[in-house]
Amino acid sequence: MTRADPIPRNPDNDYSGEQAARRRDFIRGKTGANLGAVAAFSIDPAVTQGNIENFIGTIQMPLGLAGPIRIRGEHAKGDFYVPLATTEGTLVASYSRGMRAISESGGVKTTVVKHSMQRAPVFLFEDALEARDFGDWLKNNRAEIGQVAESTTSSGKLVEIEQYPVANMLYTRFCYTTGDAAGQNMTGKATFVACEWIRKNHPLKPRYILSGAIDTDKKHSAMNLIQTRGKRVIAEFTLKKEVAHELLRVDPENLYRYRQIAAVGAIQAGSAYSGAHSANGIAALFIATGQDEANVAESHAGITYGQLLDSGDYYWSVTLPAVICATWGGGTGLPCQRECLEMLDCYGAGKADKFAEIVAAVVLAGDVSLTSAVLAGDWVASHETHGRNR
Amino acid sequence: MTRADPIPRNPDNDYSGEQAARRRDFIRGKTGANLGAVAAFSIDPAVTQGNIENFIGTIQMPLGLAGPIRIRGEHAKGDFYVPLATTEGTLVASYSRGMRAISESGGVKTTVVKHSMQRAPVFLFEDALEARDFGDWLKNNRAEIGQVAESTTSSGKLVEIEQYPVANMLYTRFCYTTGDAAGQNMTGKATFVACEWIRKNHPLKPRYILSGAIDTDKKHSAMNLIQTRGKRVIAEFTLKKEVAHELLRVDPENLYRYRQIAAVGAIQAGSAYSGAHSANGIAALFIATGQDEANVAESHAGITYGQLLDSGDYYWSVTLPAVICATWGGGTGLPCQRECLEMLDCYGAGKADKFAEIVAAVVLAGDVSLTSAVLAGDWVASHETHGRNR
Amino acid sequence: MTRADPIPRNPDNDYSGEQAARRRDFIRGKTGANLGAVAAFSIDPAVTQGNIENFIGTIQMPLGLAGPIRIRGEHAKGDFYVPLATTEGTLVASYSRGMRAISESGGVKTTVVKHSMQRAPVFLFEDALEARDFGDWLKNNRAEIGQVAESTTSSGKLVEIEQYPVANMLYTRFCYTTGDAAGQNMTGKATFVACEWIRKNHPLKPRYILSGAIDTDKKHSAMNLIQTRGKRVIAEFTLKKEVAHELLRVDPENLYRYRQIAAVGAIQAGSAYSGAHSANGIAALFIATGQDEANVAESHAGITYGQLLDSGDYYWSVTLPAVICATWGGGTGLPCQRECLEMLDCYGAGKADKFAEIVAAVVLAGDVSLTSAVLAGDWVASHETHGRNR
Amino acid sequence: MTRADPIPRNPDNDYSGEQAARRRDFIRGKTGANLGAVAAFSIDPAVTQGNIENFIGTIQMPLGLAGPIRIRGEHAKGDFYVPLATTEGTLVASYSRGMRAISESGGVKTTVVKHSMQRAPVFLFEDALEARDFGDWLKNNRAEIGQVAESTTSSGKLVEIEQYPVANMLYTRFCYTTGDAAGQNMTGKATFVACEWIRKNHPLKPRYILSGAIDTDKKHSAMNLIQTRGKRVIAEFTLKKEVAHELLRVDPENLYRYRQIAAVGAIQAGSAYSGAHSANGIAALFIATGQDEANVAESHAGITYGQLLDSGDYYWSVTLPAVICATWGGGTGLPCQRECLEMLDCYGAGKADKFAEIVAAVVLAGDVSLTSAVLAGDWVASHETHGRNR
Repeated sequence: MTRADPIPRNPDNDYSGEQAARRRDFIRGKTGANLGAVAAFSIDPAVTQGNIENFIGTIQMPLGLAGPIRIRGEHAKGDFYVPLATTEGTLVASYSRGMRAISESGGVKTTVVKHSMQRAPVFLFEDALEARDFGDWLKNNRAEIGQVAESTTSSGKLVEIEQYPVANMLYTRFCYTTGDAAGQNMTGKATFVACEWIRKNHPLKPRYILSGAIDTDKKHSAMNLIQTRGKRVIAEFTLKKEVAHELLRVDPENLYRYRQIAAVGAIQAGSAYSGAHSANGIAALFIATGQDEANVAESHAGITYGQLLDSGDYYWSVTLPAVICATWGGGTGLPCQRECLEMLDCYGAGKADKFAEIVAAVVLAGDVSLTSAVLAGDWVASHETHGRNR
Repeated sequence: MTRADPIPRNPDNDYSGEQAARRRDFIRGKTGANLGAVAAFSIDPAVTQGNIENFIGTIQMPLGLAGPIRIRGEHAKGDFYVPLATTEGTLVASYSRGMRAISESGGVKTTVVKHSMQRAPVFLFEDALEARDFGDWLKNNRAEIGQVAESTTSSGKLVEIEQYPVANMLYTRFCYTTGDAAGQNMTGKATFVACEWIRKNHPLKPRYILSGAIDTDKKHSAMNLIQTRGKRVIAEFTLKKEVAHELLRVDPENLYRYRQIAAVGAIQAGSAYSGAHSANGIAALFIATGQDEANVAESHAGITYGQLLDSGDYYWSVTLPAVICATWGGGTGLPCQRECLEMLDCYGAGKADKFAEIVAAVVLAGDVSLTSAVLAGDWVASHETHGRNR
Repeated sequence: MTRADPIPRNPDNDYSGEQAARRRDFIRGKTGANLGAVAAFSIDPAVTQGNIENFIGTIQMPLGLAGPIRIRGEHAKGDFYVPLATTEGTLVASYSRGMRAISESGGVKTTVVKHSMQRAPVFLFEDALEARDFGDWLKNNRAEIGQVAESTTSSGKLVEIEQYPVANMLYTRFCYTTGDAAGQNMTGKATFVACEWIRKNHPLKPRYILSGAIDTDKKHSAMNLIQTRGKRVIAEFTLKKEVAHELLRVDPENLYRYRQIAAVGAIQAGSAYSGAHSANGIAALFIATGQDEANVAESHAGITYGQLLDSGDYYWSVTLPAVICATWGGGTGLPCQRECLEMLDCYGAGKADKFAEIVAAVVLAGDVSLTSAVLAGDWVASHETHGRNR
Repeated sequence: MTRADPIPRNPDNDYSGEQAARRRDFIRGKTGANLGAVAAFSIDPAVTQGNIENFIGTIQMPLGLAGPIRIRGEHAKGDFYVPLATTEGTLVASYSRGMRAISESGGVKTTVVKHSMQRAPVFLFEDALEARDFGDWLKNNRAEIGQVAESTTSSGKLVEIEQYPVANMLYTRFCYTTGDAAGQNMTGKATFVACEWIRKNHPLKPRYILSGAIDTDKKHSAMNLIQTRGKRVIAEFTLKKEVAHELLRVDPENLYRYRQIAAVGAIQAGSAYSGAHSANGIAALFIATGQDEANVAESHAGITYGQLLDSGDYYWSVTLPAVICATWGGGTGLPCQRECLEMLDCYGAGKADKFAEIVAAVVLAGDVSLTSAVLAGDWVASHETHGRNR
């Protein structure tokens, strides 16, 4: 077997413009692709270290501004203009319409109700009884395990060790609060050190694997929906009847009736999200702000709940059980991404809950708009005017 | 209630550099955010029309090169260098390692086994019997409905109308093949026209809503896993024992044993994906190539299956039932994104299945690397060296 | 290792009173259990052949009469008195109350909307491409396969071969209509013969396993909910406002509001049934009528849908996607069980759909009663008066 | 509307032979059904009070004896002969075969690893923040709430109040240990009293509904699989290679390979149980021993895990997360049912865990037999000889 040529690397300094050019030359030679646009970046390659390997340039993703949306959250307060990076025509316009409906109805309340980021080691035993006894031992040594885990991090706190015994194994979830970081790596490190301490101190020196696959990192799961992953966030507002009629061209009674139909659809289909389209807003906001874009998989899960009020107005909410986001670390410090966080006053320490509230508010706005469009029958028409089909 | 200021728009030409600057000034005035990096784009704002509204600049997402990976697919054949846009350190390096393990084992076979993109109107009736009779009518008028639907599109073909009766409603899924487009909008339009025809021609003139929420657009669902959404793609290869030992530092027997443990974890957690982390590679490749990034929600679903062979080698596969991708339309024509598709020789007509095969191959590579790392115990260490915790 | 004594058997005639007595003596000697009640059966042991092995007597399960319930189904028409076998106090009383509410509101409409009983062989191949090609071959040879399968049964018809490719395998579901039998065994036999024919006639002589575990026999599954197993049956009625107030002591508006709350609960919990308690009525009716009692696992799945009408009345429905029942074969011919089927005029040929309609009507009645009780706050009180806590 | 005649009742004494006869006469007059077999019961109608209403006789369900099975549990120790009530031919024979394979391999270990029975009230608030604050209040008043709840029961203990905030509601699960009772009613009563105390003592006097539908009573759910309902029980044994070959006619390597295929099938289908057929054994044992037969819905959920050992033997386990059973109360005291519990030395105080262990052992035996039969290709043949198709 002949091997294909390896990608050029420079062990001394791989994050330079020259090195990026060398790789572009290499791939241009292989494929004939003209990489002029990819090469026309304006950020310093050096700042991408820790975010990418084999850097060859950047993808320029169009950035639009949605809003304003009035948020009356615990942390997010005021009128926000929301940066959304997407290539999906009509998305920004549609979210803006939803934001307007929310704002004209008085704004959206947002609340982070739980924090829990996990690593999920599985411990292997001779039989189920040994595994159960080990579970008791974990409870009895909870304080020390917490100390050991937390010794590796300044902001992470171990809040719970959930236990799920199956066969002769104990699947666990080490659940942390992680401050302003998303925390996947922080919790991985803390849990690894805790596991090593456990292996050393438990009489059986149990074998373990750092992931028993119930974290469930970068994937949707019923576990996430039930137990929370990252932040569990709720956004809720009352859509005024007049706003529904005039701006959204729908009647709250029809929205409420459709809620039943869509909930049945969600149950019939086994959907991860029972509303209209959380993933659109989350993906666009995550890309704009340097979040880990793969976390759309987890973060898009959620439950929509509505209630027609005696006033004729419509209470509308979304509950997102697995919002994974950060205002520090990862991609948040890259130049464009940081600016987008700054637009929301969400960069840096003490801002993660505020940002999570904005995520939920954005999701709700998107659902308000799309759901109304579907009901008002102008869904197809809207894509004809603004979007890809033009 | 005072209203916040609206975002400046120019009805005549909203896609100019001046207009983008005007909006940046506006938001800078509101928030103090310096938008220098966002403003330092090199693409022509005019090309973003149809992909974004309220354009203010671009997000520059670091782009790295992974590979080479040898693919022996039906459509994708040869050694590929894969552009991945991400801010997640170690991701490109990790995928590259998996690609090397695959290539040194002889390459990965990839196969698209089903195509099906949906819109899912729900029809409302007096009772279940009426709904059932309507279902029979749909079957009897299948040919004409197909003609009507397909009259709106040059590349879409209506291949099936699935029926899911609940209560006094008939939930349907109009399933199409969509050529090289992802097809959400195409199928929306075709289904709308078909529904209007149905409403006109069926004696009951039935009410319908264009989405009964079982599409399930931009969300994971059991329906997708079972019935396919977009493309159902399979990647499979046989990991050679020597490659496992030398490159991945794991034993195939341990990989196989861990497969049982992870499958149990996936069942226990109710995970959308039973392997390690499909979403990482999909998100990075989707962003690089102008796919709809929100489709990570659907596309990350999948099933991993492995088998230890008598030879001591390890058969390893991933089945992705809901890969949604395009090589034409949407964001694929934007300058950077198009270049990335060209790197893979996947831009334009006749390339969608080839691209889908690459997606599956990339996912498998990522799982090979991460799974091995978890087992080899160097997962935490790897993030320490390359990644965010450095 | 010493072996425990084997249970006495008589190869010549194991279904006699003497042989039953011999086994009771044996077990009495081992355990001291007085088996007087078990021995006091009145049926002829000979009739149990084909339904049990190692017969030692009978369990006498209390049988109560619920109703009347007015059913306006396609097959079930009139006022029915429903035999329910249970040991759960208040169950019969509660179902009767629901039946009365339904009857006083004008009765329940019932409709069987789909028939589909499966066996699900999985075929094993070298790679996914071979499996896909085999799938095409199955389609091309559909007619002959149907003939072969149907040659083994007088009432079963092969209506579809669903295909679910994963890895290098083709999971299939052979879907049949089965007349008045539940059909698990009939379809097992027909599918086995079809598979043998396939193995003989396909050039690759593919290996297969008769169950790839997606039937999904004797277990709930998303597959059942989506694709139907057995019969998909819908029951629906409109609860009159006055009946709600006077008989159930609830307001339709509260029922409707609670529907939202319970639907959210079902989504949050990932419940197989989104209403109150289908399994109670199904289990009791199945035991009374000689159904396979294990099929409660599949049959209890379902979706509840309600709608508050402008009149103030409440449309209430239940959709059961996996009702597995028979009016012939299995336990239906046993003396007590047959009498219970006769009470419903459901014994023998041509009655299976009628019986399935009654099942759905009963489930709906139970939900009407329990849901109202929960809302009216007398749930605990009811158990105090009639039930186990007395 | 004419009303159908009501079922005759006697408010003074409805549990007499005369009253049963009167109702049989009534229904015989209505339907022509001869109720001779139903009437030929030998138990005293008076003992059925609290288990049935409108008593008309009994269903005589055939009872067979399976076993012996050697159990080496924490509570169940020794060789057991297991009473199974069923009308499904081959079931007892098949379970017996599995029990023999287990016994000849040295027996099965059984372990109850968690106890948790729930009622799940939902509390309604103005907004999510109020709901979250209420959740904190619940935690702070946990001790008093426990005291109040436990004041209503001698054996129930409140061990946890789980919280699942959605929208402006707090869904809770009050989790109890319930001694030897299944505990649905006990926990209903205790939770009701606790809720009344909460409503009285919390400053907002919150509205609540006793069931927010996440209990999830009488239905399978992901919640049950994750969080346990009733008892979480594990059975495990090591199948000896020789026993596999000689008794089951299968090879452990094939069993292991098939485990992968069936696990994939379970994931593909979204099955509640990843093994072969838990519901059969559970239903038959539940009916024999006076359990609530509707709980098959919950109890049949589970996870199978196997491992091929270096010795060539096969570790085989089943984990059942939601076994709901009792050795006291409900139907356990009825004459036949009590005798069956006595056969297992499981009647009365202190026996519930022992009984739960037997349930898990029986389930495992059934899977050993059926799985082997499917692999050995004699599945259809077996039904031909013993079962319904003869």
